[in-house]
This record gives sequence, C-alpha cells and structure tokens, in this order.
Amino acid sequence: MSYVHAGRDYERDTRYLTTRITADGRDGYPVEPGRYRLVVSRACPWASRAVIVRRLLGLEDVLPMAVAGPVHDERSWTFDLDPGGRDPVLGIERLRDAYLARDPAYDRGITVPAVVDVPTGKVVTNDFAQITLDLSLEWTAHHRPGAPDLYPAVLREEIDAVNEPVYRDVNNGVYRAGFAGSQEAYEAAYDRLFDRLDRLGERLTRSRYLVGDTVTEADVRLFTTLVRFDSVYHGHFKCNRHKLTELPVLWAYARDLFQTPGFGDTVDFDHIRRHYHLVHTDINPTGIVPAGPDLSPWLAPHGREVLGGRPFGDGTPPGPVPPQEAVPAAHTPRRHAPMTQ
Amino acid sequence: MSYVHAGRDYERDTRYLTTRITADGRDGYPVEPGRYRLVVSRACPWASRAVIVRRLLGLEDVLPMAVAGPVHDERSWTFDLDPGGRDPVLGIERLRDAYLARDPAYDRGITVPAVVDVPTGKVVTNDFAQITLDLSLEWTAHHRPGAPDLYPAVLREEIDAVNEPVYRDVNNGVYRAGFAGSQEAYEAAYDRLFDRLDRLGERLTRSRYLVGDTVTEADVRLFTTLVRFDSVYHGHFKCNRHKLTELPVLWAYARDLFQTPGFGDTVDFDHIRRHYHLVHTDINPTGIVPAGPDLSPWLAPHGREVLGGRPFGDGTPPGPVPPQEAVPAAHTPRRHAPMTQ
Repeated sequence: MSYVHAGRDYERDTRYLTTRITADGRDGYPVEPGRYRLVVSRACPWASRAVIVRRLLGLEDVLPMAVAGPVHDERSWTFDLDPGGRDPVLGIERLRDAYLARDPAYDRGITVPAVVDVPTGKVVTNDFAQITLDLSLEWTAHHRPGAPDLYPAVLREEIDAVNEPVYRDVNNGVYRAGFAGSQEAYEAAYDRLFDRLDRLGERLTRSRYLVGDTVTEADVRLFTTLVRFDSVYHGHFKCNRHKLTELPVLWAYARDLFQTPGFGDTVDFDHIRRHYHLVHTDINPTGIVPAGPDLSPWLAPHGREVLGGRPFGDGTPPGPVPPQEAVPAAHTPRRHAPMTQ
Repeated sequence: MSYVHAGRDYERDTRYLTTRITADGRDGYPVEPGRYRLVVSRACPWASRAVIVRRLLGLEDVLPMAVAGPVHDERSWTFDLDPGGRDPVLGIERLRDAYLARDPAYDRGITVPAVVDVPTGKVVTNDFAQITLDLSLEWTAHHRPGAPDLYPAVLREEIDAVNEPVYRDVNNGVYRAGFAGSQEAYEAAYDRLFDRLDRLGERLTRSRYLVGDTVTEADVRLFTTLVRFDSVYHGHFKCNRHKLTELPVLWAYARDLFQTPGFGDTVDFDHIRRHYHLVHTDINPTGIVPAGPDLSPWLAPHGREVLGGRPFGDGTPPGPVPPQEAVPAAHTPRRHAPMTQ
C-alpha cells in the first residue's frame, strides 16, 4: 500500500492494477500452478491477508511467495532478505522493477501484495481486496483437501456487510489516525476506530467468529489489524484509548485466531515493528524501534471454545508451515519460563 | 528540568541553583510566609513533587504558587495561563526573567520547580530534590495541623535508599529511554526501567506504601512518574513493555495514591499530554496529541486497604483544594455513566 497525504486528511491511493487472475483467464491471466509469484511484506496488513488466505487454502506450492524486507526505501520494497538482495525467481532487487515492467510510465504506489507473472516479470495485480477473494473463488481447483470455504456463497452478503465498516474504521481507520494532518482529523479517526472496535467486541461476545461459525474472509481482514494493534497502532499511530489487551472480547478473539494454524504462524512481529517505526520517519524521526510490548500473552489460553464454532468447519487445519517460509522464532512470541517463587 | 542530548546517551543537566531556603536563613533566604513564590508546571514530574508536598503539608497560603502553561517555547516556561500572559505577583511573562534576575549570565536550564524570592524577583533555587525535603524539614513551623511527616528521621535512611534507584531507573529512566540517541541506549534504559518496576511491584505486594505504613517522600517521587506513565511515557517515550494498567500491583498502588487527597487532585492530564507531545518536536514532529488513554480507571477501587497502613498516620488528610488552584474538571478523570444494557 502507499500513502498519500492530501491536505489535512489522510487519503489512501486506491488506484490499483485491477487485472484479475481467474479460472477462465478472461483478463489474459488464467490460474496456473507455478506461473505467478505472490510478493508480500510480512509487515504489511494488506499483504498479510493474502499470506494467511494462501496458507489456509494450501496454495503454497502452486503460488510461490516472495517476502520483501521490512524496511523499504523511498522508491520501493526490496528483496534484501534474499541472497544477493535479489529475488531468486524474478531476478530483481526491487519490486518497483516489476511494476515498471508492467507499465514503464507507472507512477502510483509500489505496493504489496502484488502478484507477478513470472514469465514476463510484470505485476498482474496489486488489488489487495480482490486478490484474497480470487484465491478463494478462482483457485479452487488447487485448494488443498480440507481447505475451508472462506467466502461461502450463503454468507457472502453478510461478510461484505461486515468488511465494509471494518475496512473504513479499523483497517484503514488506524492509518487515518496515524497519518492525520490535523488534531481534528486524528480525533475523528480515533473516535470512529474505537466506536467500531466496541461494536465488534459486542458482536463477538455472542459468536466465536465474525460471520457464521467458521473462520471466513471477514476474520482474516480484522485479524491483520488486531495483530498489529499493540505493536504499532497503539503507540506509533496514537490509537491509544486502550490496548487490544485491554479489550477482553477482541483480545480473546485475536488470540484464538493467532493460535489457529494459518494465522499466527504467518506473523513476524519484528518485521511489523521495524517497518512502521523505521519507514515513517515523519512520525518517528529518531528511528528508535520500541522493544515492547511483551508478546508472550498471545500464547495464553483464550477460552473462546465455549462459544462453539469450529475454525475449519468440516475441513481441516493447514499442515505445518513449509520450512522455507517459517518466521524466525526470535520474531514470534515466546512462552515465559515458568515462574518460580 | 532541561534536557541535554550528549552524543548517543541522554544526560540530564544536574547543575542546579542550590541556594536553600531554611528556618535559620543561613543562605540568606529564611523561611518566611508570603515571601517566596513556587513556580511549577503541572506537566512536569519534578515540579509536581513540590506541588504535592506543598499541599500535603498545607503550605498553600504561606508559599503561593504560579502555574506555567504546559507548552513553553524554546527559551522558557511562560505564564500564558494568566491574564495578559503575565504572572500577577512576579509581573513577568517568562520564567526566564527570574533566572536572569538571579544571574544575568545564566545559561543553564530554565527549569521548574523554581522558588522565586518575590521582593527581588530572583530565583532562589531550582534544586528539585532538595526543595521537597526543605518543605518537610525547614517549613515545619508553618505546616498545617495534622500534616504528615513525609521524611521522618527514623525512616530517612530507608527512604533515601529507595529514592536512589527510583530516580535512576524510573524517574529519570523514562527520559533516558525517550531521549535515547541510539537503539542500544534506549533498550538499556527500557530494561532497567521495567526491571526496577518489577522489583517495586514485588515490594509493594507486601506493603501499602514504599517505606513504613504511611505516605512518605518516597511515594511522592514514585507517584509523579507512575501517574504520567500511560499518558506519555508508554507511547511517547516508548516505555511499552506494559502499560501501568497491566502491572496489577503498581497500578493499584498508583490508584490508591491518586485517590488520596493531595495527590490526584494536583494532576492535570491535559497539561501532561500537551506538554510532552507538543514540546518535544524532535520526537513527535506532527504535533498530534494522543486522545487516550481512557482515564476513568484511575477512579476505580484499588483494594489496597487490606494491606493496612494509613496514608496520614496519626495526622489528617489535607482539606479541599483552594478554588484558585483547582485543576479544570475536563483535565481530570471522569467517572463513566453507569452502563445500561
């Protein structure tokens, strides 16, 4: 995603490359195992949606993934985590090159997630909201056995109805607060954010998941903001009425998802912290990266089983994370050693 | 207080004007009702010690107080809260003028608390650590009936022993974290701060107050940092392993003191938030002041009575705050309206 400061209010640049990869290939890009590369940053909530959905659906082998480093420069996300600073498949150092391959005059955001057509090296799409839906609806032939239906037809209307305010007030709301150009704009975003979180907490008092009794696209979208909340949005973006840990229902809901295979095992708290605090030099000019918060509570029991629901319905959880995609243990919550008196 | 960034480590400029106001007047400044003016900012933890001690001892009438505005300019705290932007007694707009009256070549920090000799308009002392001790030990003839002994001779050694690490790791430790010139310096300060808070929490599990079974100077000094913790140190200074609200013993201890007459009734959360976030433009260049955290929990029951102890021992609590010194209600925690289903 890219950021545009428009006068006193923050506005997200929502002009995406909207070409779609579909089963019937009507945009010229048919679903095809091994043809595309999903480029993400584990720091980015919008990219992390795709990382989670890809894993829940078991698409790791058919849609390989490139992970950009958390600290990009002014122009582009870079592949500085890879040997030689170059993505081994695309052969480029900067994601920008794949955008310019698509359009030499490209002048919008160099954003993740981006799906790149490997043979041509061109970005097909960076339309993050459509990418996950298409993974669910267009890549079905390649889903793993037991993959959940994250966007079931019968619940689609309700999922869309939940997603809309979650996007406006929460997913994008934290950015509206953090990048506000005035005290008034900040406070308006802050109020909307916490009003919405209160309502979501109320909804989740009664049901384990946002829509229906299994995980859906709606949970993925809320999770990627909640998991970043205390590490970056609370302090760096000043969304500080409460920490997530102080909102009991949402905090238990977020822990439940975190502990569900396919969610927490994709999260790199080190990338999250370093990205926001090192890239936004206009907010954090000192470049000091907070050492907190303590992450171990993410592993604490959540007690949400009493609400019923089964994360994968009649399906199954995804298997272990492929070793080459594992998040370094040092970037994940660690259990405290047992307390001794 | 003033701040000096020395290379990569933050160092506090501790060269104070150490002239003392004493009962015997040996430095030329005898204790004398109405002769001096205590200049403070309610934003400043070092000044707030003096505000609390003055009130606990009932010195409001004999040592009148000037409250500077929370947002000073580069050169000085200013009296912008007063009509015409001028302290009505000292007749000056900037505290700096009282420092220059003392020494026309004065080139150190223009700090609060400062005690000014009204007849000459000169700062007598800004030695914050000594000021509160002298209020306790030298102004005894003017203490209110029932005033507590905040620095009793029999506990003095223990109070000093507690104050030393509290100053180093907590009172000043939050500044060492917030103004760190390197990631390493920040992390060292962060570790020392939270290690110390853990130890203090352990100590306070067993006793209601830090030393003895009544409030003392030691409690005043720890309180002024704790009451600012979640509003400024947690986010702005990145002291974010936990919020105070997540450290149950210290949080109950802080609430207990907050609810004790003479402590919480001196606290202006609006001045605290605005001062730090608007003055430290090198840390918060956007000038956005966080709207959180929610302050109402400061009024919640603390349950510390079960540990025994009486805040004022055989003495009594101070009476109501003089109206002209009352903190505006909008700058204090408000009780939530009762929740309705």
